[in-house]
Amino acid sequence: MSRILTVAAAQLGPIQKSETREQVVARMIKLMDQAKAQQADLIVYPELALTTFFPRWYHEDRAEADHWFEASMPNPAVQPLFDLARHYKMGMSFGYAELTPEGQHFNTSILVDKSGAIIGKYRKIHLPGHVEFDPERTHQHLEKRYFEPGDLGFPVWRTMGGLIGMCICNDRRWPETYRVMGLQGVEMVLLGFNTPSVNSQRAGEGLEQRLFHHKLSLAAGAYQNATWVVAVAKAGDEDGHHLMGGTMIVDPNGEIAAVLDGEADGVLVHPCDLDATRFGKETIFDFKRHRRIEHYGPITAQVGVIEPS
Amino acid sequence: MSRILTVAAAQLGPIQKSETREQVVARMIKLMDQAKAQQADLIVYPELALTTFFPRWYHEDRAEADHWFEASMPNPAVQPLFDLARHYKMGMSFGYAELTPEGQHFNTSILVDKSGAIIGKYRKIHLPGHVEFDPERTHQHLEKRYFEPGDLGFPVWRTMGGLIGMCICNDRRWPETYRVMGLQGVEMVLLGFNTPSVNSQRAGEGLEQRLFHHKLSLAAGAYQNATWVVAVAKAGDEDGHHLMGGTMIVDPNGEIAAVLDGEADGVLVHPCDLDATRFGKETIFDFKRHRRIEHYGPITAQVGVIEPS
Repeated sequence: MSRILTVAAAQLGPIQKSETREQVVARMIKLMDQAKAQQADLIVYPELALTTFFPRWYHEDRAEADHWFEASMPNPAVQPLFDLARHYKMGMSFGYAELTPEGQHFNTSILVDKSGAIIGKYRKIHLPGHVEFDPERTHQHLEKRYFEPGDLGFPVWRTMGGLIGMCICNDRRWPETYRVMGLQGVEMVLLGFNTPSVNSQRAGEGLEQRLFHHKLSLAAGAYQNATWVVAVAKAGDEDGHHLMGGTMIVDPNGEIAAVLDGEADGVLVHPCDLDATRFGKETIFDFKRHRRIEHYGPITAQVGVIEPS
Repeated sequence: MSRILTVAAAQLGPIQKSETREQVVARMIKLMDQAKAQQADLIVYPELALTTFFPRWYHEDRAEADHWFEASMPNPAVQPLFDLARHYKMGMSFGYAELTPEGQHFNTSILVDKSGAIIGKYRKIHLPGHVEFDPERTHQHLEKRYFEPGDLGFPVWRTMGGLIGMCICNDRRWPETYRVMGLQGVEMVLLGFNTPSVNSQRAGEGLEQRLFHHKLSLAAGAYQNATWVVAVAKAGDEDGHHLMGGTMIVDPNGEIAAVLDGEADGVLVHPCDLDATRFGKETIFDFKRHRRIEHYGPITAQVGVIEPS
């Protein structure tokens, strides 16, 4: 058996502060055209796909960052993208900064089906970084300042012939992320990221180790839950701050099925057989036969470390 | 700062059905001598270190396998190993099949401190394989027939200047294993394994992919909990059934610090700086700042998959 979902990982190169939403959407449309030419069923753009990675910039008054947020979705700036996806009958996912009518701020991604309807929303749960200006870092990473932790859990949606979930950037380092989706039978995880090429707290941890940790986290999540993982970067130099690439598609064995070189706009298209998830789910990771939840209690009972006496 | 614990991963080559406990203990003593010559503080032997990997052999009457089990620990056959460890002031861990006074069967490992006292016991929780003879497999893997799932959780012990935990073989593929120990601040996980070189349910999955999944699981567990992982194989051809090697020591970044080639008896000694766990535990994996247990509920609330409607 095979159930092929052809997915396009649509990497974006850097977005400078000066770029408008309309300029970015025009770039995204070019990538959608390329994905269509390669028969993609689904196109996946990165985290914060409409703007620069603004959490690197400190504002004493948080409201000064509100212009990076979308108060509605779709909105006029992104409507051409929705229109083209519907015209192409192509599913779509992208990330953006969400400002709710109640004034809440989230780092959000959406899942749009082939009819152009938004059928899923995910709000980033594992926000990295810090709240206040940190003079000891080589650069700021203020996600905990500008966003609230997501409040929608890790849902999985039955759509496009499979079971699809989403997570964002730092979520990928947390095995709980994949496991909660794995417990819903997820067959493909869509994951956008904006990852600085250097650790702001350890200058010696450069691109090579950052890419190693990235691949390791994707591969472990894929293997241990027998799911595809589609990881899409925003990459390159944004106003003097470098984001790593590493756009790739990982198969349910944890092997890299396809990888995109470089840090510019580009699509990586791969036909993903969702039935390739069956073997793992039915044998070594057949959860109902093998998991022993009576011994997992601390995972949900405690947040931080409690050392033995 | 540095807190060095010099650990010896003591790989065992194959143990044939015909070998006695005394013969095996003599091999283990030779490895302990080698570890001492390299100033090891702690020596770690594999899973089921005293016998062949007997769960590959089917007995209709389970009691026919009882002769592979230890009814007490230490016992006369292993006493020389305990005596030498105490003489050397070396900590020790090894795995064996445990038969309790109440008649329970477990796949067990113990932790012995430098005074020769058994200070910790772990009973394997994630038993792979099956209960009944399976004619569709290329070889049997009857751990679920001969053992009960462990009933002691995943404890961590404060000993030898650090926080040390244990798990066994298939436990390493389950992120819950490391996380429960990580939530106790674990700094070194001791892990013995006996892993067939071929997947009994997919003949095409051979040594290369098996080693890839092994390394992937160790590295992810180490990185995502900022802990050392000491993985020790029983390897080679046991009565016509091949076990893979892959003895290695993984650092808290998920990088392989040292690896042992081959499938024979041998020690791999590495000075592990337990303070190298601090950076990860205090930054990206500072659990108390970053974990969001309100979204992890399914991990402990449900055993198997519940797909969305």
